[in-house]
Amino acid sequence: MAEYRALRQKYTILEMIKTPELACEVTLQPINAFDLDAAIIFADILPPLEGMGLQLEFVKGEGPLIHNPIRTKADVDALIVQPPQETLHFTLDAIRLARQELDTRSIPLIGFAGAPFTIAAYAVEGGSSRNFTQVKGLMMEQPNVWHDMMMKFSEVVGHYLQAQAEAGAQVLQLFDSWVGALAPQDYREFVQPYSRRAIEIAKQAGVPIIHFGTDTSGILEDLRNAGGDVIGVDWRIDLDVAWQRLGDDVAVQGNLDPVALFAPWPELKRRVQHVLDRAAGRPGHIFNLGHGILPQTPVDNVKRLVEFVHEYTAS
Amino acid sequence: MAEYRALRQKYTILEMIKTPELACEVTLQPINAFDLDAAIIFADILPPLEGMGLQLEFVKGEGPLIHNPIRTKADVDALIVQPPQETLHFTLDAIRLARQELDTRSIPLIGFAGAPFTIAAYAVEGGSSRNFTQVKGLMMEQPNVWHDMMMKFSEVVGHYLQAQAEAGAQVLQLFDSWVGALAPQDYREFVQPYSRRAIEIAKQAGVPIIHFGTDTSGILEDLRNAGGDVIGVDWRIDLDVAWQRLGDDVAVQGNLDPVALFAPWPELKRRVQHVLDRAAGRPGHIFNLGHGILPQTPVDNVKRLVEFVHEYTAS
Repeated sequence: MAEYRALRQKYTILEMIKTPELACEVTLQPINAFDLDAAIIFADILPPLEGMGLQLEFVKGEGPLIHNPIRTKADVDALIVQPPQETLHFTLDAIRLARQELDTRSIPLIGFAGAPFTIAAYAVEGGSSRNFTQVKGLMMEQPNVWHDMMMKFSEVVGHYLQAQAEAGAQVLQLFDSWVGALAPQDYREFVQPYSRRAIEIAKQAGVPIIHFGTDTSGILEDLRNAGGDVIGVDWRIDLDVAWQRLGDDVAVQGNLDPVALFAPWPELKRRVQHVLDRAAGRPGHIFNLGHGILPQTPVDNVKRLVEFVHEYTAS
Repeated sequence: MAEYRALRQKYTILEMIKTPELACEVTLQPINAFDLDAAIIFADILPPLEGMGLQLEFVKGEGPLIHNPIRTKADVDALIVQPPQETLHFTLDAIRLARQELDTRSIPLIGFAGAPFTIAAYAVEGGSSRNFTQVKGLMMEQPNVWHDMMMKFSEVVGHYLQAQAEAGAQVLQLFDSWVGALAPQDYREFVQPYSRRAIEIAKQAGVPIIHFGTDTSGILEDLRNAGGDVIGVDWRIDLDVAWQRLGDDVAVQGNLDPVALFAPWPELKRRVQHVLDRAAGRPGHIFNLGHGILPQTPVDNVKRLVEFVHEYTAS
């Protein structure tokens, strides 16, 4: 969006996240532009790592970098677990500000955090990764160090989510973007206990929790078993197949391929309709993209999509 | 392997692929080093694109580049469909040479080709891709152009595989490495017919066909329905779950995470055992990695893995 790019000319991503007024402003931009059913707080999954002692930088064109990645037992021992009120107060403040505005329009606010595995992937790799060799290496070669690290991440993530709800977020989302890189057995043994722990802590706030991952067709039941009232799926599985596997106890969020938003409207519409038809009007379907919106996505298509989803599901 | 790196000091990848004596030599390197049950011809999935008129280069540190990527109807119309005997004779010659050597050791030779979608991904993106925006864009925005292009790819790939079997390959493998980027509906509508067509042509040679993809948990049945005697799966699904979904009519290849080869032997062994236990001695399991072996993989671990698989499955 042009409004967002205008702000990005003046501030870095971290400056925007750490200035509650700016984070609140960006949170409201999509709400002002589209007839959305919910807002999501402008934040990022990586600032919790800063509070733990890692040096985070967003490098233009390269994405996030961690200058002191975790590789050893000493690195894990050095990770600090602090209350989110001390290290992530800016996002909690942004939530409070955004809620004041959103309440006047009766739009709920979603808070979020990266799941333990996904933030571990950044923390250990030192940035984005193709094969996740370092993070899986730590997991396979130093399982005790791994478990200590994941325990710390699950505490930080869980309490961060809980604090977001206490600050005003009415729904919480746990993002496990890279969990699909794992073999199911590794997920169950090295990751699931920590996602479960984070969700258990967050649940104390008493708001619904969306548990989202990409590439999760091979671990869908395992991911659900870690917790969450809503399971988010990407576009790589038919929505009805996913829901059948997940069972009636959970709601489902998804699952349009974000690339479809670049298509001409009739083709995009056909694809949105396809997702909605697979949900078949079942209560508990939250229409969404299967992953984050891509840069350069045509804004007009987003607008028409939101209108069409409302129209089609109302009929 | 050191022997391979020594050759790569002197020749580019394309020089090695296009010189049958060198391609044969590299094909035999793993056979000489490990007690493997089969050899795979040293080749690449992209040279067929050269024969169709695309300019291919392997750039150090960047991977493959196509200097004139396909974007328009005119680009697709310009694609030349020629017999593999004219454009890919070097690999057919390498197969003939390798067979002479392998026959003396009673080791079968596997030929292979990239599946239509995976080579389309390179041809349209112009190289590797993260979100496959260009290739999906062509598919969504210009479906007629897409279908014409995929028809050409399926013909080229199918006849190339058939020619490899006629030159001596005793098994054929169709690699659909990037197919997991697709929504199931897109796979069925825009890709499956062309994988099926390629396999139907290749089948005329009368040798078994392995149909492999990564990230296929969401489309496993659809992939199987496109054909193949063996379905190759990556590590993102439990082998027994995959096999149950695939049914008894097909054999299954897989499915160790290639990153596990970096682990200390006891941990690697535990993971290999896990895969074999899930296969549970069922006839028709071909043990393999879930995707290509990674650079810097410790050679000793490969050796021990091969020995252990033989030992464990013999007992």
